[in-house]
Amino acid sequence: MSRLVARMAVAGVGLVGGSLALAARRAGLVGEVTGYGRSAANLALALERGIVDRVAEDPADAAAGADLIVLAAPVGACAALADAFRPHARADAVLSDVGSVKASLVDALEARWTPSQVVGAHPIAGSEASGAGAARDDLFRGCPCVLTPTEATAPAALELVRALWAGVGARVVEMPAAAHDDILARISHAPHLVAYALVAAVADVRVDGRAVLPWAGSGFRDATRIAASRAELWRDIALANGPAVRQALAEFRAALDGLEALIAAGDGAALGATLERAGSVRRGLGGGEA
Amino acid sequence: MSRLVARMAVAGVGLVGGSLALAARRAGLVGEVTGYGRSAANLALALERGIVDRVAEDPADAAAGADLIVLAAPVGACAALADAFRPHARADAVLSDVGSVKASLVDALEARWTPSQVVGAHPIAGSEASGAGAARDDLFRGCPCVLTPTEATAPAALELVRALWAGVGARVVEMPAAAHDDILARISHAPHLVAYALVAAVADVRVDGRAVLPWAGSGFRDATRIAASRAELWRDIALANGPAVRQALAEFRAALDGLEALIAAGDGAALGATLERAGSVRRGLGGGEA
Repeated sequence: MSRLVARMAVAGVGLVGGSLALAARRAGLVGEVTGYGRSAANLALALERGIVDRVAEDPADAAAGADLIVLAAPVGACAALADAFRPHARADAVLSDVGSVKASLVDALEARWTPSQVVGAHPIAGSEASGAGAARDDLFRGCPCVLTPTEATAPAALELVRALWAGVGARVVEMPAAAHDDILARISHAPHLVAYALVAAVADVRVDGRAVLPWAGSGFRDATRIAASRAELWRDIALANGPAVRQALAEFRAALDGLEALIAAGDGAALGATLERAGSVRRGLGGGEA
Repeated sequence: MSRLVARMAVAGVGLVGGSLALAARRAGLVGEVTGYGRSAANLALALERGIVDRVAEDPADAAAGADLIVLAAPVGACAALADAFRPHARADAVLSDVGSVKASLVDALEARWTPSQVVGAHPIAGSEASGAGAARDDLFRGCPCVLTPTEATAPAALELVRALWAGVGARVVEMPAAAHDDILARISHAPHLVAYALVAAVADVRVDGRAVLPWAGSGFRDATRIAASRAELWRDIALANGPAVRQALAEFRAALDGLEALIAAGDGAALGATLERAGSVRRGLGGGEA
């Protein structure tokens, strides 16, 4: 793979940012990767694991000379990072991100950067793990990465970000930011909130003096594994994509209400058919054990 | 391990019934295991895999001479199986089951059998897999198995069923059937229905002509894996434990409504704290990758 940029700065060297840095370095896509972040311990681990070449002391050190700056911090922290980097960055530096919400975030970044040089990106990969210790160079292999260019986006900037994600193994897809946000609200954001609610609903429940939680089997653990994700990430996503998330939750509630109405009516035939149809759809998705 | 019974009949040689039969045979707990079920192909597979010693042709053949009969069929099918076995079973044959609902089922079995010889049991183990092909001799190792004896239960019958489950590696616990059903409604039955609803809610949704489902990442797959379970099982469980399941769904809805209210209010501090608390509870449960 040929080198795409001489210097990439990654703000937030966690699961996603760290995996991108690691994969890009190993694939020879970047000359040097600078890591920047809040946790000195995490940055030290990233350096030790060879995820980054060097650690920046401050925003000026992180942004100086970078061809490409990737924001891999919680969605709610990205605008402030762009503000912090802007005075120190090259005029033609490309600014990208990895956030699970695109429309409001890309708007905020275009307002703070040369708009043509902003490219919104969202690799659909990850897990409930976090930190540089969880970074893997194969995290994005075969996963979709959605790019959401706007009318302002320069073709060269878009091409650079596309080549970066393709170079680490992702299947790159373009779509409008609003469509991305409506899709992710339904297939990711609302399900995460549902998983958190499943845990919250039973956390303190006792039956005849017995706590409920210790009886969790593998089914409950699977269904709620994503609730072990960093709360800060999902707080920011839920707030940044609020209207779409609430619409998705309304659709989920309608589906659940439908099941409950069949239980209340004792309608075994319709309940069985509804569950079987959903089961068949789920089996069609495959295990996703990866 | 010393032999507990000369002959055990298992009605329903799927994941749970098949795993019990396999583990009991390998541990030397039973002299002979007879398998009975609806699917000739599944029974043939059970015979080929050494899960059962022989396959019964009909209820009379299955019940004749059995010391212990274990019903490992969907909850809604168990009463009819008890009716079918009764005329052919020994007067002192112990009847047990593995159902995820206990009060209504144990009532139904005691009404059809010598009540002292009925022992309700529920091993909290399993997965979305099904059939004799999924049976494993270590499925119950370290998992809880709840027994729900009633005032009618004979100590010897209870002891036999306890020794069987302990012998295949389960941690045997006794509790009243009603408490079991209230606990399982919250930690298992309602979460299964939630997982089915998550799939049903997005199955047909399209955004700007794009289906939503292909964008499912590992989080959605984890959260909905249990919706790949056999629909028939969960239909029966939801109906047999209806009031407790509806109460559990009401508690879940209240938790979800609470999250949504914080999103609607844009209250990032409270939303973050609520998610963090649930996340901390979930991390305390461990991965449950088994």
